[in-house]
Amino acid sequence: MSVISRELKMLREDVLAANLELFRLGLALFTWGNASAVDRERGLVVIKPSGVPYDTMTADDMVVVDLEGRPVDGALKPSSDLPTHLALYRAFPLAAGIVHTHSTHATAWAQAGLDLPAEGTTHADHFYGPVPCTRCLNDAEIAGDYERETGNVIVETFRNREIDPASVPAVLVHSHGPFCWGTSALDAVHNAAVLEEVAKMAILSRIACMAAKDGPPPMQQSLLARHFERKHGKNAYYGQK
Amino acid sequence: MSVISRELKMLREDVLAANLELFRLGLALFTWGNASAVDRERGLVVIKPSGVPYDTMTADDMVVVDLEGRPVDGALKPSSDLPTHLALYRAFPLAAGIVHTHSTHATAWAQAGLDLPAEGTTHADHFYGPVPCTRCLNDAEIAGDYERETGNVIVETFRNREIDPASVPAVLVHSHGPFCWGTSALDAVHNAAVLEEVAKMAILSRIACMAAKDGPPPMQQSLLARHFERKHGKNAYYGQK
Amino acid sequence: MSVISRELKMLREDVLAANLELFRLGLALFTWGNASAVDRERGLVVIKPSGVPYDTMTADDMVVVDLEGRPVDGALKPSSDLPTHLALYRAFPLAAGIVHTHSTHATAWAQAGLDLPAEGTTHADHFYGPVPCTRCLNDAEIAGDYERETGNVIVETFRNREIDPASVPAVLVHSHGPFCWGTSALDAVHNAAVLEEVAKMAILSRIACMAAKDGPPPMQQSLLARHFERKHGKNAYYGQK
Amino acid sequence: MSVISRELKMLREDVLAANLELFRLGLALFTWGNASAVDRERGLVVIKPSGVPYDTMTADDMVVVDLEGRPVDGALKPSSDLPTHLALYRAFPLAAGIVHTHSTHATAWAQAGLDLPAEGTTHADHFYGPVPCTRCLNDAEIAGDYERETGNVIVETFRNREIDPASVPAVLVHSHGPFCWGTSALDAVHNAAVLEEVAKMAILSRIACMAAKDGPPPMQQSLLARHFERKHGKNAYYGQK
Repeated sequence: MSVISRELKMLREDVLAANLELFRLGLALFTWGNASAVDRERGLVVIKPSGVPYDTMTADDMVVVDLEGRPVDGALKPSSDLPTHLALYRAFPLAAGIVHTHSTHATAWAQAGLDLPAEGTTHADHFYGPVPCTRCLNDAEIAGDYERETGNVIVETFRNREIDPASVPAVLVHSHGPFCWGTSALDAVHNAAVLEEVAKMAILSRIACMAAKDGPPPMQQSLLARHFERKHGKNAYYGQK
Repeated sequence: MSVISRELKMLREDVLAANLELFRLGLALFTWGNASAVDRERGLVVIKPSGVPYDTMTADDMVVVDLEGRPVDGALKPSSDLPTHLALYRAFPLAAGIVHTHSTHATAWAQAGLDLPAEGTTHADHFYGPVPCTRCLNDAEIAGDYERETGNVIVETFRNREIDPASVPAVLVHSHGPFCWGTSALDAVHNAAVLEEVAKMAILSRIACMAAKDGPPPMQQSLLARHFERKHGKNAYYGQK
Repeated sequence: MSVISRELKMLREDVLAANLELFRLGLALFTWGNASAVDRERGLVVIKPSGVPYDTMTADDMVVVDLEGRPVDGALKPSSDLPTHLALYRAFPLAAGIVHTHSTHATAWAQAGLDLPAEGTTHADHFYGPVPCTRCLNDAEIAGDYERETGNVIVETFRNREIDPASVPAVLVHSHGPFCWGTSALDAVHNAAVLEEVAKMAILSRIACMAAKDGPPPMQQSLLARHFERKHGKNAYYGQK
Repeated sequence: MSVISRELKMLREDVLAANLELFRLGLALFTWGNASAVDRERGLVVIKPSGVPYDTMTADDMVVVDLEGRPVDGALKPSSDLPTHLALYRAFPLAAGIVHTHSTHATAWAQAGLDLPAEGTTHADHFYGPVPCTRCLNDAEIAGDYERETGNVIVETFRNREIDPASVPAVLVHSHGPFCWGTSALDAVHNAAVLEEVAKMAILSRIACMAAKDGPPPMQQSLLARHFERKHGKNAYYGQK
């Protein structure tokens, strides 16, 4: 086996592992997610095939294309989101792997058309600032080279808002869902998992805030004392002591 | 083995099975739940011991008392909620099994101090009307025979509001959580599981209603068409076809 | 074995598999769901028996009826929702399989009495427009041939609103829950699973929108920087590097 | 093996077990949590190493330091949150174990910057009053000895508000997440699990309250009766009876 084919084989296995991890972490139902990786030296991208279920995919099913999307190797059609991945690889030299999911809470923010705000250190440990939401594509962009335009609007968002894709390795595509990138396909999956969790936390923290005015009053002091004392007080009678 | 001890043995096994089912269905964390059953003929109640973890309990650990709570058999102390169970067995002749949980969504309604409204057929299939929430106990009731008063306020709620405990086999105790009953300990567990699910549905349906005015606008028609067509249209290009 | 009985046997196995998949995907608790399939050539419908738990059902338990609901084969009573299935098979020639569930989030929208709005591409990939919610049945319809009227109001909804059941293979029955159809019983299950997920996303996206005005302010810039830098900065001190 | 090294070995195993339990209970994703324990007699603290995944950790990986944080034993770097743990051990003599998590619902309250109110007996059984949220750290504290200042602001909160850390063994650090303590590392984990559950209940009870005005009307009485009767009435036709 040549050096090239050996390295391609390893990249295919990495991309397969990343796709399976997406599924295992609950970030992708059915076939709703895809992971890819790039070999910058050779200008090759390996990506999940389109519409193939996770439980039967093999490394050989992974599709190899060049950075313009021309087929290089593999019997299957690549993910229909390939042009988005390629636009990001071309614009973000730091991206070695890319992941797209419809994970529930991150997608909810994308559907709301809102940036995911940075509200705590869980977010700050991974994303240096809000995760931006793109503008809506216009009808011409949607009717045209749609998947490539999706990549373009992501790049435009980071350029116009001067966000460093190394510090915020994720984006919410308006009315669609998240794309994440990283130092490998698996690292991009990790970023997608963190994004999903902080998207969930941000929704919950906002409910807590909204309800601060309207929530129920605290429980009665007498009931609070009774329950605490029956379990932890001097005359506790809960349990077998 | 005498007939009595054989029948008590079976009842203990039923009560153990009901307690384990509470845990298996996710209705009780740690030791936060208890199931009991009554033998009306002999006037005996079998109940979970207090504070014993579900994974080590045996049928022999189940505690046997009479309808006034006097110990009859068993080495362990009964659940501290025993007096509530007894008050319900005395007032509701139809109850053959009783379950108390702190299941998440039913407890949320109890903490809100609100009846669980009947909002759909899932609810109607099991509960003929709202599941009532009791009034707050007063300080004297809390400081006094608290667990017995908890049973009394449940009975008072059904009497004052003229609710038939056969048609609505569940209640929410204010600032506390649900009690459910049934034709056996396992049937009471089933009612507790249904209550938890309809409590969750009612919270979610209210979010949907609240948000009807403030939610995001529908997605763009052009984007809706593009995505539907790329997967299902004449020129679909998603998948391997 | 005759050709007919061989084909019926296969259809029974398909219907069993679809019912089990409903349970496995968490779309149906206890016995709260049913799947059926139609053999258009012979005018036969195979459906789950009423109130039988998923874990003990066999293919032989599946009930065979004709398109008017007359029993053809099987020892058990069919699902009580059979007349709804039949009304849909008669009105929607494209439906080869039908599924009814009380899945949590789709049911929440049905209880809210609201269409499930199309808010993102996850929805658009499967449903070409909002999933409609029917009007309430009137008292005569409820007191009469209730399950058949449930089918009728679904058909009325699609006709009056000129929705193509091939493009929107799902409906929310007011105060009740979803019915879905597809090119097979398993395809209908798939549509039910997608519906549940987009129903969840739509609830979450609406919380995000509602809270946009009232949510917490973003975290402090200094804390954001400190956490990002301690993990990813030049002087990072998190981890073992 | 000396008495000291034997006891340290046991403490390391306890701390490992507590860290694994954090993961098993779903309180910590990836490496986002840490547990420690103190040997008061010898003035030694055992804590999880920084950034090491839960699934490969061994007892020997646990790091031993003194109460000023000086390394005593272990090849790895301690958790970066060590100075917070130490500040708490110095100020709260009752704490024998400490746990830090980013568990979803407790963190949501911390991000909202709000005390977790006592709204029911599930809370009262474990926490005698609201679980306090600290003030924001100021920029000097964040830029300085940040992790130690995090400990200091926790201690300040309990002192200024005269909260007994034995009665409320948990705190929410503003924009960050919870710290919990207990009579052992495993007891601290238990408190962290209870905190997460009551944080979830409090969010849900507030939704129920908020929606009381805006929720859907109850279902029709005729539909309620029809569904209850078809399953439980004299002429019930649901199931195989």
